[in-house]
Formats: sequence, structure tokens, C-alpha cells
Amino acid sequence: MSIFLGLGAMGSALAGAVRPAVVWNRDPRRARPFSEHAAVAGTVEKAIIADGPIIVCLFDHHSVHQVLDPVAADLTGRTVINLTTTTPDESRELAAWADGHGIAFLDGAILAVPEMIGKPGAAIFYSGSESVFTEHRDLLDRWGESTFFGADAGLASLYDMAMLTGMYTMFAGFMHGAAMLAAEGVPATEFAQRQAPFLAAMTGGLLEYAATIDSGDYAGPGQQSLRFTDAALSALLRATTGQGVSTEVLRPVHDLVRRQIDAGHGDLGTARIFEELRSTR
Amino acid sequence: MSIFLGLGAMGSALAGAVRPAVVWNRDPRRARPFSEHAAVAGTVEKAIIADGPIIVCLFDHHSVHQVLDPVAADLTGRTVINLTTTTPDESRELAAWADGHGIAFLDGAILAVPEMIGKPGAAIFYSGSESVFTEHRDLLDRWGESTFFGADAGLASLYDMAMLTGMYTMFAGFMHGAAMLAAEGVPATEFAQRQAPFLAAMTGGLLEYAATIDSGDYAGPGQQSLRFTDAALSALLRATTGQGVSTEVLRPVHDLVRRQIDAGHGDLGTARIFEELRSTR
Ligand SMILES: NC(=O)c1ccc[n+]([C@@H]2O[C@H](COP(=O)([O-])OP(=O)(O)OC[C@H]3O[C@@H](n4cnc5c(N)ncnc54)[C@H](OP(=O)(O)O)[C@@H]3O)[C@@H](O)[C@H]2O)c1
Ligand SMILES: NC(=O)c1ccc[n+]([C@@H]2O[C@H](COP(=O)([O-])OP(=O)(O)OC[C@H]3O[C@@H](n4cnc5c(N)ncnc54)[C@H](OP(=O)(O)O)[C@@H]3O)[C@@H](O)[C@H]2O)c1
Repeated sequence: MSIFLGLGAMGSALAGAVRPAVVWNRDPRRARPFSEHAAVAGTVEKAIIADGPIIVCLFDHHSVHQVLDPVAADLTGRTVINLTTTTPDESRELAAWADGHGIAFLDGAILAVPEMIGKPGAAIFYSGSESVFTEHRDLLDRWGESTFFGADAGLASLYDMAMLTGMYTMFAGFMHGAAMLAAEGVPATEFAQRQAPFLAAMTGGLLEYAATIDSGDYAGPGQQSLRFTDAALSALLRATTGQGVSTEVLRPVHDLVRRQIDAGHGDLGTARIFEELRSTR
Repeated sequence: MSIFLGLGAMGSALAGAVRPAVVWNRDPRRARPFSEHAAVAGTVEKAIIADGPIIVCLFDHHSVHQVLDPVAADLTGRTVINLTTTTPDESRELAAWADGHGIAFLDGAILAVPEMIGKPGAAIFYSGSESVFTEHRDLLDRWGESTFFGADAGLASLYDMAMLTGMYTMFAGFMHGAAMLAAEGVPATEFAQRQAPFLAAMTGGLLEYAATIDSGDYAGPGQQSLRFTDAALSALLRATTGQGVSTEVLRPVHDLVRRQIDAGHGDLGTARIFEELRSTR
């Protein structure tokens, strides 16, 4: 038996993919669609009477504590799998809280929208208790591709956020390009039909940059120099201004590059941007 | 016969794909590899004695003028195809200059590295004289997929730059994500192996955003609201700071979103970023 706390859009998708199940939601109306094929519990206390892992998918870190704190004593010896989106530090806090109550804890970060759950393309990152991951692997795999990153409960969330950073910056760059062309009457859809396959092809470049980053050798052959990238970005920014479009998305990338040239690194490869951004802790 | 002015890395790749050819380069040593299968001209004047289109691939806008200005009078009635990278306004300036001398002018922007020329995946955008594009289509198609965008000579360059904006912002976002994970000892290569296919899949989202932009309806159903994106980006920025990584690449995207929420648009879709960036001319 699996127990689901939270039946929002995502919690409903997760619970809908699993039988048998006990489900609970704060607003009981959201549990109604489950009444035919799951046991609907009126309270959290009643829901957790059943055996099995407790899958939590609520709004945020705060709501997880609001729901679990009152029943913490009853959770000793149980397993909690948290699929609520939390920051790495929030996941670590929950893991420490769980540890303090003798709860086995696995944190998950979902890389999918609810409609994708249980279908190809859905992926969930996990970290925390490896034995929970191993023991419940069949359950986890019902939702999507499951990957375990390590005992640090914050890692799954961190990995997810690193992935999303690339996505949001790519989206913003696309909007910028669409705005440049809109000034000449080019529809965004026409641009997107060229931009999407081009960017998909250019993701191959990430692997080359990564190899350079891991080698630490920004002076090796075949790299696009910071000086070259500076010239390219300068031209893009001039063209952006020429179109009356805001430079705010692209200018920080140029500033990053310029700073390194000013520091004498102009002949090094562009992947050195990584060093300029990274932790110096 | 085709005439090539400029045999740098790119000019050599273009000329190498075409026979018969006349080639010229400022530094004559770069013409040597062509001596067996092309006519090598010692001066620009001699090169343009031959009939046929003149393909120019030099360093920048300035070098194009340096090479063509002295022979401008001899170019009347001829065809110039400029594949040097220039900004939209520089391309327009060259088109006006050509027009003033009775030169048929086509501007091209190359979306490829020299190794790709003549192979699948290479694309070149053109704008300017449509009759030059049509008449020399067979020549152009030897280098890659040829697309004509219109009579405004600046369009090919503008389109190219809009494409590259997405690429550079995507690259910067990847570096940011790699830096977040580096703080936990995750190699960039491991991250890139997940990030590349994820971003490639997410390019599908560009078409959805574009449809929204073209409809102008940011209030329609199924859109991720600016408020939701604000919360997501806030979490990413907190996690970034938590890892000791610079927020400079992502923060401007968040600022864009926040500004729209402050202006009362929080319930509208995230594609509205486009409106905030675009020209108000
Ligand atoms: N939807 C996605 O595309 C997606 C993708 C990846 C990750 N996620 C993550 O999945 C989680 C759930 O998302 P969702 O899309 O299902 O959100 P949602 O549809 O807004 O549902 C939120 C759920 O949280 C419950 N809740 C909120 N505050 C609560 C509290 N104080 N006490 C008890 N229950 C509370 C709500 O209960 P009521 O019904 O009683 O309000 C509801 O069940 C979020 O952390 C989200 O970031 C979602
Ligand atoms: N390489 C790429 O991946 C790529 C991709 C897309 C577009 N492009 C564009 O293609 C163009 C050429 O690039 P490239 O890679 O071939 O560059 P390159 O290898 O640096 O070659 C530059 C060429 O320009 C000539 N040149 C420079 N200044 C000159 C001047 N004042 N007068 C006469 N000749 C001059 C050089 O002649 P010397 O040999 O005498 O110096 C050389 O032939 C650039 O606009 C570049 O942006 C390149």
C-alpha cells in the first residue's frame, strides 16, 4: 500500500499511477476522483495508519511541515518520500528533521509536468536514503525514469535547479531573439521553427565545454577564445540596440566575458565563464 | 567561374567547395593550397577580371570596404555576395554602397563552422537581391541549406544574430548550472550529459511560447504564470547563492519577471517577457 498526502495537479498524477493507494488532501473535494480505486482518508492521522511508504506532494517546504509536524511521533520507523519542490537547503532541513524522528527519508525533484507522469520523458531525481530508493524502486519507476544522486538529501533538488537554470536562460534568450525580429515583422512562430532545432543541435556544444571545464585547460587548441566571443556578443548587443530591444538578458553575459579579458584572459577559451561564476568557497 | 576574395578559415572552406574558381587573399600564402585546382590572382583587380559572382569572406565590415572600395568603379554591373559577418546596419550600409555603384548585392550570414561547409547541418541565411539569390542558387546550395529572407539586406544578419542570442544565453545558463553542481563535486561532463538532452527536449517549449506571443493573448489557459515563474526563479537564485555561485546570469531574467508582476501582470503567462523586451518604436 502507498500513502499519498497532497492531491494537487502533481500529487493527483503521482497517486493516479499507483494501486493500491490511500489518499488524503486538505480540501477533500480533490480526493473525490479517487474514491473508486483508492481508500480516501479524512485526516492525515487516518491516512498513515496504513502500511507502506508515505509520498508527500504539497505546495512547498512550509506546507510539508504543516502537514507532517503534528504526526511526527507516529512516523518513527516509517518511510517518507518527499516530491514537493524544495531548495537544496530545505531538503536537507527536512532530512535532518526526519532523522531526528527516526524516519527514513528520500527527497525527489520532478522534471516533468503532471501530464507526463508515467509516460516516456518523465524523469525524477532522488537523493537521501539510498535504501529507500532501492527498496521502493518499482514504485518510483512507475512515475518516470528514476535516478539516485547520493546521500545528501539536497542533491536531487540542486541538480534539478541546475537543469532549470539552463532552461530559463534559454527561454529568455529566445524571447530576446524573437523581439529583435519582431521589429521587422517576423512572427515569433517563424523564428521558433528555426531557433528550436538550432538550439537543440547546439546542445552538442555543452559536452565540449564540459570537457574543457573538467580538464581545467582553457588554453588548449580548438577553443573559441573569450576575445572572439567578446566581438560576437558586442555585435549582437549593437544589433539588439539597433532594433530597439532591451539588452538586459544578454548584457550580463558580455560583462562576464569582458571582465575576464580585462583580467588578461582574452586568449583563453570561452568555457572559462564557468570559473568566473563558480564557487570560491 | 566564381571569384573568391578572402581565404581565411571560412573563405577557404567556401572556395574549396566550388570549381572553377579564381581566388585571392591579402597574404598570398593562404592561396597556395588552391594553386592546383583554382586560378590564383595576385591582386583584387586581376581576380575580378574573370566573369561570375564575387564572393567576399573577410574579417569584418571594415575589411570589406578596404578590399572593395578601390575597385568599386570596376564592379558596376557585377554581382557581389558578401559572407563576411556584419551587423544588420552594416549589411544595409554595404547594400546601399553597392546600389550606388550599380552592383547587385546579396548578403549572407553563415550558421556553421568551416568544417561543416558543404556537409549536412550547414545553413546560410541570405537577404538583399532576390534575383542574385535565385540566379546563383546552385552555387549557394553547395555550401549548405540556403534560405532567403527578403530584400532588406540586413535581415539575414539580424536573423543570424537572433539565433545566436539564444545560443549564447543557453551556454551561459549551462555554465551557471555546472558551477552550482561543481560546489558539490559533480563533474561538468556528468551534468552536460543530462543538461544537453533536457534542453534539447525543452526547445519544444519555444514553439508554445511563440504561439502565445503571436496570438498576443497572455491570459489564455494553460500558461505558466509570471507569478509561478517568479517563485521558481527566486528558488533558483536562493540555491545559487547557497552554492556560492554568482547570480549575474539568471538575476536579470528574474528582474524582468518581477517588473511585470509589480506592474500588475502576475497572472499573465511567462511568454509576456517578450513584450517587456521588445521594441516600442
Ligand atoms: N505541476 C507541475 O508541473 C510540477 C512540476 C514539478 C514539480 N511540481 C511540484 O509539485 C508540488 C505540487 O505541485 P502541484 O502542481 O500539485 O500544485 P497544486 O496543484 O497547487 O497543489 C498544491 C497542493 O498542496 C496542498 N497544500 C498547499 N498548502 C497546504 C497546507 N498548508 N497544508 C496542506 N496542504 C497544502 C494543496 O491542498 P489544497 O487542495 O487543500 O489547497 C494541494 O494539494 C509543488 O511543490 C510543485 O513545485 C509541480
Ligand atoms: N570561422 C567560423 O566559424 C565562422 C562562422 C561563421 C561566420 N564566419 C565569418 O566569416 C568571416 C571570415 O572568418 P574566418 O574564420 O575565415 O576568419 P580568419 O580565418 O581570421 O580570416 C580572415 C580573413 O580576412 C582577411 N582580412 C582581414 N582583414 C583584411 C583587410 N583589411 N584586407 C584584406 N583582407 C583582410 C584575412 O586576410 P590575411 O590572411 O591576409 O590576414 C583572412 O583572409 C568572418 O566575418 C567571420 O565572422 C566565420
